[in-house]
Amino acid sequence: MVRMQLDLALSYDVVAPGCDLILNIHAAQTPCQRVQEEQLSISQAIACEMFGDQLTGNRYARLRAEPGPLQINYSALIDIQHHVAAPESIGEVPVSRLPARVLHFIYPSRYCQSDRLLNLAIREFGHLWQGYGRVLAIQNWVRERVKFTPNTSNSHTSAIDTLIEQVGVCRDFAHLMIALCRALSIPARFVTGTDYGADPRLGPPDFHAYVEVFLDFRWYLFDPSGTALPMGLVRMGTGRDAADVAFATIFGSVNSLAPKILTQAIVDQTAGLVMPYHSSSALSTDEV
Amino acid sequence: MVRMQLDLALSYDVVAPGCDLILNIHAAQTPCQRVQEEQLSISQAIACEMFGDQLTGNRYARLRAEPGPLQINYSALIDIQHHVAAPESIGEVPVSRLPARVLHFIYPSRYCQSDRLLNLAIREFGHLWQGYGRVLAIQNWVRERVKFTPNTSNSHTSAIDTLIEQVGVCRDFAHLMIALCRALSIPARFVTGTDYGADPRLGPPDFHAYVEVFLDFRWYLFDPSGTALPMGLVRMGTGRDAADVAFATIFGSVNSLAPKILTQAIVDQTAGLVMPYHSSSALSTDEV
Amino acid sequence: MVRMQLDLALSYDVVAPGCDLILNIHAAQTPCQRVQEEQLSISQAIACEMFGDQLTGNRYARLRAEPGPLQINYSALIDIQHHVAAPESIGEVPVSRLPARVLHFIYPSRYCQSDRLLNLAIREFGHLWQGYGRVLAIQNWVRERVKFTPNTSNSHTSAIDTLIEQVGVCRDFAHLMIALCRALSIPARFVTGTDYGADPRLGPPDFHAYVEVFLDFRWYLFDPSGTALPMGLVRMGTGRDAADVAFATIFGSVNSLAPKILTQAIVDQTAGLVMPYHSSSALSTDEV
Amino acid sequence: MVRMQLDLALSYDVVAPGCDLILNIHAAQTPCQRVQEEQLSISQAIACEMFGDQLTGNRYARLRAEPGPLQINYSALIDIQHHVAAPESIGEVPVSRLPARVLHFIYPSRYCQSDRLLNLAIREFGHLWQGYGRVLAIQNWVRERVKFTPNTSNSHTSAIDTLIEQVGVCRDFAHLMIALCRALSIPARFVTGTDYGADPRLGPPDFHAYVEVFLDFRWYLFDPSGTALPMGLVRMGTGRDAADVAFATIFGSVNSLAPKILTQAIVDQTAGLVMPYHSSSALSTDEV
Repeated sequence: MVRMQLDLALSYDVVAPGCDLILNIHAAQTPCQRVQEEQLSISQAIACEMFGDQLTGNRYARLRAEPGPLQINYSALIDIQHHVAAPESIGEVPVSRLPARVLHFIYPSRYCQSDRLLNLAIREFGHLWQGYGRVLAIQNWVRERVKFTPNTSNSHTSAIDTLIEQVGVCRDFAHLMIALCRALSIPARFVTGTDYGADPRLGPPDFHAYVEVFLDFRWYLFDPSGTALPMGLVRMGTGRDAADVAFATIFGSVNSLAPKILTQAIVDQTAGLVMPYHSSSALSTDEV
Repeated sequence: MVRMQLDLALSYDVVAPGCDLILNIHAAQTPCQRVQEEQLSISQAIACEMFGDQLTGNRYARLRAEPGPLQINYSALIDIQHHVAAPESIGEVPVSRLPARVLHFIYPSRYCQSDRLLNLAIREFGHLWQGYGRVLAIQNWVRERVKFTPNTSNSHTSAIDTLIEQVGVCRDFAHLMIALCRALSIPARFVTGTDYGADPRLGPPDFHAYVEVFLDFRWYLFDPSGTALPMGLVRMGTGRDAADVAFATIFGSVNSLAPKILTQAIVDQTAGLVMPYHSSSALSTDEV
Repeated sequence: MVRMQLDLALSYDVVAPGCDLILNIHAAQTPCQRVQEEQLSISQAIACEMFGDQLTGNRYARLRAEPGPLQINYSALIDIQHHVAAPESIGEVPVSRLPARVLHFIYPSRYCQSDRLLNLAIREFGHLWQGYGRVLAIQNWVRERVKFTPNTSNSHTSAIDTLIEQVGVCRDFAHLMIALCRALSIPARFVTGTDYGADPRLGPPDFHAYVEVFLDFRWYLFDPSGTALPMGLVRMGTGRDAADVAFATIFGSVNSLAPKILTQAIVDQTAGLVMPYHSSSALSTDEV
Repeated sequence: MVRMQLDLALSYDVVAPGCDLILNIHAAQTPCQRVQEEQLSISQAIACEMFGDQLTGNRYARLRAEPGPLQINYSALIDIQHHVAAPESIGEVPVSRLPARVLHFIYPSRYCQSDRLLNLAIREFGHLWQGYGRVLAIQNWVRERVKFTPNTSNSHTSAIDTLIEQVGVCRDFAHLMIALCRALSIPARFVTGTDYGADPRLGPPDFHAYVEVFLDFRWYLFDPSGTALPMGLVRMGTGRDAADVAFATIFGSVNSLAPKILTQAIVDQTAGLVMPYHSSSALSTDEV
């Protein structure tokens, strides 16, 4: 088991009255991810409504901010229990046996236009053994082609753009990998967290986007940009693509500062709390 | 109340073994839409698994077909109870009060790239009274610009394409209207049914796509292509856009014939069953 | 030398008065391609203005048609002298030495968005020897990926679409090959003619699109779709891409029938007129 | 007549050897625009090849730079003679009478996908009188919709993007206006110069992009972004769109500083040299 300490600080300057924010910065509550402690503080004396999504475990805070500075701090202590499996033992699930609630994740979405990639995906990956190894091949294909390059993409950039221009950040790697999986009828979804383990030369700690693929009736973790340590990922949002799980959706006029993020592993051998490490095993933190 | 008799026939020629089909041709079961009788028949002696989606009421049939001809017939008798309201009484729901399960319908999706239309939507509709009338203005804007023209769009065509090229079929009208609503943070979704009431000069009866918009805590019906009679629409699928609710998703090699569709209203004044008619009132068949 | 007999018949039904047509169906006059005889006949008694483009040798007929049937026949006897060279001897021309009038052909154009393909082109072809062999590698890369499939593309389809969807016809192969060459600063242009030598199973004889690439101070022929016999190609139009060299640009309302095309080689050993054949040598019919 | 004094300074830091630059910073030489004096200085002791394009009057400098700082200064004194006409007297030229060399400017190009805008252009402008006034209506339509917003577009942004997102800079305004004109078969082209007369609040003086439209057998000036003073525009490059007339095309690795630009009008009443002013007359500086 890994135990992660998460500390986030978001800073805004709200320009006009009547500004709504929907935040998805709480760690998700799932059978494999337990939030042991958490604290949210908001610098303005405003109401904060919490609500959640049963299917995904996503948790949202909704607030209506007043003009002026707005500081939001979130801290949590989270235990994550990883399901570990040998890659060669993990097969794909045929469409005829996919659970109903998983089916949505084979359809195209805003940033993952899998419907346009059928020929390409079959050409590149159609001949491979249908299991974890094929998904790994997709991940490697994306990682070899796309160059991690900040400020080359924006909120409109989709998998097609990334495939063509071959640059992007974690979100773009994730979208392209998801689109290719779905083009092969392999369910794939978009997960957000923080980039624990990232090379400091890429910039200060930040939010992160990675991928889950449905194999052998579980959702397995993949980090196509390769910038974080998968075992240290704390799940915040799970959705079809970035359209579903922005950490902040803002309805109004706001100036934003860069978020401040700190993610630490709490190690205690006697309590069975290990340091996240790069593993060649397949990792999963969600069943269906 | 209206009572509709629906008769569908799908004809395929399955080319290779191992072909999976997921059909969304059953009438949805919702508080406002009751399926009184129904019958599904399949020409091949194969298993058919039924499953449903609790959130939307969508019902799916999954089958694995064998090579050769495949004929699927579905008949149903459906009662629909419309909520009727005066358009001028129906306001929009502010983001701060939108129910959690409705929020997804303000985000962009595969065919409704609302994130790119913010400026355009605000320019065209930002100054209007925030209620049913504004959504009607959006519908009329789309209907004035887009020309109903079969064979001008395909399964990759999105709202952006329709906005640019100004041609399409019901599905394209729906996508563009949805994208414009979402760009204004008005929840909007894609519904499929059959085109009851369509002008026969547009071709034989067919599946249909229309729009629901969340106003005053209900989903109100809009038919942006204007080809069908909204009161006669039988709900089959409800989703974010066409990616979610294809009437048939086919995994394998199949030749398809045009579907045969018959939708009739059963009128019985003494039982309170009326003929669907064009109404200037707002109609709704779903609450949240 | 090859001698080609070309016979074209275009059939239109002009719906409304005031319909202008600009036709680019005359064989080009260039130092390597001599039109020995030709004849144009038009079924309507209307004026036909001929004009040409000095830079490319393109020849155009402009007519204003009257309502009713319009039949246009063009026949020509054309001699083509090929410059033949050994592929391994042909290098690229560095940007610093490119003639001024060739420079335009390294810039992106409507259907060849080379500006978006820089990373991809460098990744796939940047390490290869800079000469004919690299261009051949580009041609083969396109031919391996794209599947010749009629009715999968239309007049809006661009190189980016073809790269993503991997289907198309000769025009789409040409656009993708041109875009990849230009992304490497290799001048490339679009040429039209007829598909002499095409497999009859692909359909009746038709117009054709192929590619010329500027190497070693000449324009060398490439046929990326691989459907025609390069030595039998009669040049009609030369331009940046299909936007420049439609065989017919029509301003008005017209119904078109499929063109009828016959291209034959005239062989006469004593006169040095050979049968076009598939050659592994590099072929060129234009200098600068 | 206006006389303009132009002073440009370009600053680069060349990273690697073998860097080619093609500059289009010289004032064009045309019958209406005479370069009275000019001077080019280059901080490196390298050869500079000058060449021109007869059709457009564009003049190019080609250099191969060495690693290290590279400073390029260009100064010129230019006389411009404007053809002035009354807008209401200027009609469109029908396709049947367009000169051959003008025809290219009705076809779509990289950033002006007029082929996709036929329906939209006819819907918005098809009913208007076919002359200068219609083109002015197009210019105003673009100006009303698009908001001048630095850093919202990049070198891949096209007219379609600008139409959808409704933000951009001068280049984007120009592309959209050109695309709409061509969709109506009105020849339109892209011109570069400097933004003489621009509001200093938009930033320091910069290069500028504007539009020429072929009406009544002349090319008339339009400045769709409305940021400069048309009478003070010095023509540098003329082409189909920005792909043709970058002020600097760089083949190699270079860091660029912002260009420094100064454009001044030289006024001398006795010599007939007037101050550029906003005129409601139609202005032209090129015949065919």
